Amino acid sequence: MTDVAARFSAIVGGRHFAVDDAIADDYGHDEALTIPPQRPAYLAKPATAEEVAALLKTATEHHVPVTARGSGCGLSGAAQPVADGLLISFERMNAIVEIDTDNHVAVVQPGVTLTELDAETARVGLSYTVYPGELSSSVGGNVGTNAGGMRAVKYGVTRHNVLGLQAVLPTGEIIRTGGKMSKISTGYDLTQLIIGSEGTLALATEVTVKLVPRLAHSVTVLAPFDDFDQVMAAVPKLISSGLNPTIVEYIDNVVMAAIVNAEKLELGIPEQIRDTCAAYLVVALENNHTDRLDEDATALGALLSDWGAVDAYVLQGNSARRLIVARENVFWTAKAIGADDIIDVVVPRASMPEFLRRARDIAMAEGVGMSGCGHAGDGNVHGVLFCKEPKTRKKLLTEIFALGMSLGGAISGEHGVGRAKADYFRELEDPAKVALMQRIKHSFDPAGILNPGVVFGQHRP
Amino acid sequence: MTDVAARFSAIVGGRHFAVDDAIADDYGHDEALTIPPQRPAYLAKPATAEEVAALLKTATEHHVPVTARGSGCGLSGAAQPVADGLLISFERMNAIVEIDTDNHVAVVQPGVTLTELDAETARVGLSYTVYPGELSSSVGGNVGTNAGGMRAVKYGVTRHNVLGLQAVLPTGEIIRTGGKMSKISTGYDLTQLIIGSEGTLALATEVTVKLVPRLAHSVTVLAPFDDFDQVMAAVPKLISSGLNPTIVEYIDNVVMAAIVNAEKLELGIPEQIRDTCAAYLVVALENNHTDRLDEDATALGALLSDWGAVDAYVLQGNSARRLIVARENVFWTAKAIGADDIIDVVVPRASMPEFLRRARDIAMAEGVGMSGCGHAGDGNVHGVLFCKEPKTRKKLLTEIFALGMSLGGAISGEHGVGRAKADYFRELEDPAKVALMQRIKHSFDPAGILNPGVVFGQHRP
Repeated sequence: MTDVAARFSAIVGGRHFAVDDAIADDYGHDEALTIPPQRPAYLAKPATAEEVAALLKTATEHHVPVTARGSGCGLSGAAQPVADGLLISFERMNAIVEIDTDNHVAVVQPGVTLTELDAETARVGLSYTVYPGELSSSVGGNVGTNAGGMRAVKYGVTRHNVLGLQAVLPTGEIIRTGGKMSKISTGYDLTQLIIGSEGTLALATEVTVKLVPRLAHSVTVLAPFDDFDQVMAAVPKLISSGLNPTIVEYIDNVVMAAIVNAEKLELGIPEQIRDTCAAYLVVALENNHTDRLDEDATALGALLSDWGAVDAYVLQGNSARRLIVARENVFWTAKAIGADDIIDVVVPRASMPEFLRRARDIAMAEGVGMSGCGHAGDGNVHGVLFCKEPKTRKKLLTEIFALGMSLGGAISGEHGVGRAKADYFRELEDPAKVALMQRIKHSFDPAGILNPGVVFGQHRP
Repeated sequence: MTDVAARFSAIVGGRHFAVDDAIADDYGHDEALTIPPQRPAYLAKPATAEEVAALLKTATEHHVPVTARGSGCGLSGAAQPVADGLLISFERMNAIVEIDTDNHVAVVQPGVTLTELDAETARVGLSYTVYPGELSSSVGGNVGTNAGGMRAVKYGVTRHNVLGLQAVLPTGEIIRTGGKMSKISTGYDLTQLIIGSEGTLALATEVTVKLVPRLAHSVTVLAPFDDFDQVMAAVPKLISSGLNPTIVEYIDNVVMAAIVNAEKLELGIPEQIRDTCAAYLVVALENNHTDRLDEDATALGALLSDWGAVDAYVLQGNSARRLIVARENVFWTAKAIGADDIIDVVVPRASMPEFLRRARDIAMAEGVGMSGCGHAGDGNVHGVLFCKEPKTRKKLLTEIFALGMSLGGAISGEHGVGRAKADYFRELEDPAKVALMQRIKHSFDPAGILNPGVVFGQHRP
């Protein structure tokens, strides 16, 4: 074992450390479709912030690149290690430290999964509202990518629901940012800076998240539309309605057919409607009062009809749950049917029709199919591209991302830049902003050990 | 006129530039109680981002300190210029550029006041929900301090309601951050980093804010309590109730007497109750449905009674408005009755009783009176200190801030550190965090021209 390996091993203990071929294949990748697996040189599974600090201090001294890993289900390769680097897996730091019902916060270690947190908060009538597709994802991973998901239209994304962090700097210093409150005006907001930085600035070792009262009743309405633009036009009106929906998703007919088939869903929609329908809107409402919920669901149905829906199906209990689960699993469905890349562009919600129309035209010009679904309330489009040829795919994605940015949007709404989108980010983003971000990166990590290649591309220190 | 003055003047035009004694007294201060006025050497009133960029570029070249000013109503001295510096007043950049009803955003220049923005958004049934005490404050100033206010318990503070910025770096580069959407995971969140940086990192020249549907009906309930701790204990229960209040304020009996007297309020509370009451809880509810609002108000009254309120007064229309305005004006009331300093400590909301009890004991030990009110739902305490002697005041504040921090809180919840709290910040905050923030500051502003003395204290480049 090399000197540095021995030092890493001594920090976490031999049982929680491995090198080279002793590292299982799973640690060599996350779920990004376009990044080839890469086994790291070292794998460490720390148990405490102090161990993380010692690992980072040692890595800085020896210029060893460090990548952090939660559940490994990211879609942009930010948890993908580098060949001569150290992978820090947070799987042992998976304790729910505290659920504080007076302050409505939970304090958790980064390895806690959303499923685990949901089960514990449910016991006390509270809820952590971030709800990305993958509920086996870890809170630490969510912090890294600023995970979003279906409930963001009402509750915001990870950055709106994380109040504070304990984080380790590459120097080995352990800091605490924020706290058990929503407002602080005392110096720069380091919490928000670290969230979404994809493991390039500091590693979160404890996360304080906001909880809200868990609402007792919900209803899910599925509305098929024959005209795609009408779906999109309905979204701003729905947001303006004051019905305050928890979920506003669109699913195009191709994706709906795929998930209905994959999940063997029976949604009760006549074949004739399914055949002519261009896309579906899925809207969920929540309330503590069943009478208010019923009244709102009726109002919603009438509005959807006014806005051009062919019909509006109120899904009950199990059907609603299964549709939402199927929507969560759409990445796996897309992967199974051979998707070559996924788009996570976000645009102002009113620009979605134009974006989708023009993005489809761009793809079509190369004979490439594109279909999708997305978080319509947030302007976040998840398109699936079927295009095996890397050069063509790169060209298409560059044009599609540039289109999104020209409409005031960004390359990624919730998956992050990671490794998969780093070249596009470098090519398309304002150089003044990239340079500023790199200076910020340097202010945290002068040795450049944290996740080199992520966000900024292949620029090693 | 010196060379640099001539350059500044040429950028904005002679009519919008002044030096030394030609600068009106008002530009020499904001509303911080403890910072003596200081006239700047130069005053410029730019009209465009390009003019701001040229001013900053010139200031960097000549090492001239630069302070930005909105409405000048900040409470921590962050808009207070330095003697040899340039004050950039945003009073001419006061256009509402766009109100986008499809995306529910407004794009405004920094000099727009909350009153102006409220009037324009009301026309289209929308609302910008940040509601600090001073409605003549500017959006740019709000961005600087991360302003909070009474509705933060439901809608969050400035950082939760600003989606994007156009900002000028000290280099003269103009960048755009964020956009007309709530979720972006594409590089570091520069929007959030600039918000709350009190003019020390970059100057916002355009702000994209989130709007929400304006709810049609509201009710305000005023509940006197004989026992102060019961007021505090009621707050977490109220937040858990699911009633989702827009406002949750506490006002102690001293402050209530002062504002009732100053504003000549008639709240209909019998003298006997007023005499024995320790503090009041003010709760506002909003709804689009009057029946739901009535039902919720009734439920709220019953809950408040269960939690120990002597009574619950439902204030109608004008009385409710006048009480809220009086609460807004409490700073002016405090100033009029001779307050020597104000506290803006934020703690986890469940720690408010302990904080207030122990802070009062600290003050009392020096024979100093302390009373207050605050944003109870957010744990944000506005205490007023009556203590003329600077050394004693400094000692008391240091102890009170340290107490707040020991309970997991921070020195400032919404006023900012500015100049007034900079020494405390330097003394009490984790040195590793201060050093990191200074490196971040350097990554934006290597020449150190932006607001020297603010946040970090008297450390000139």
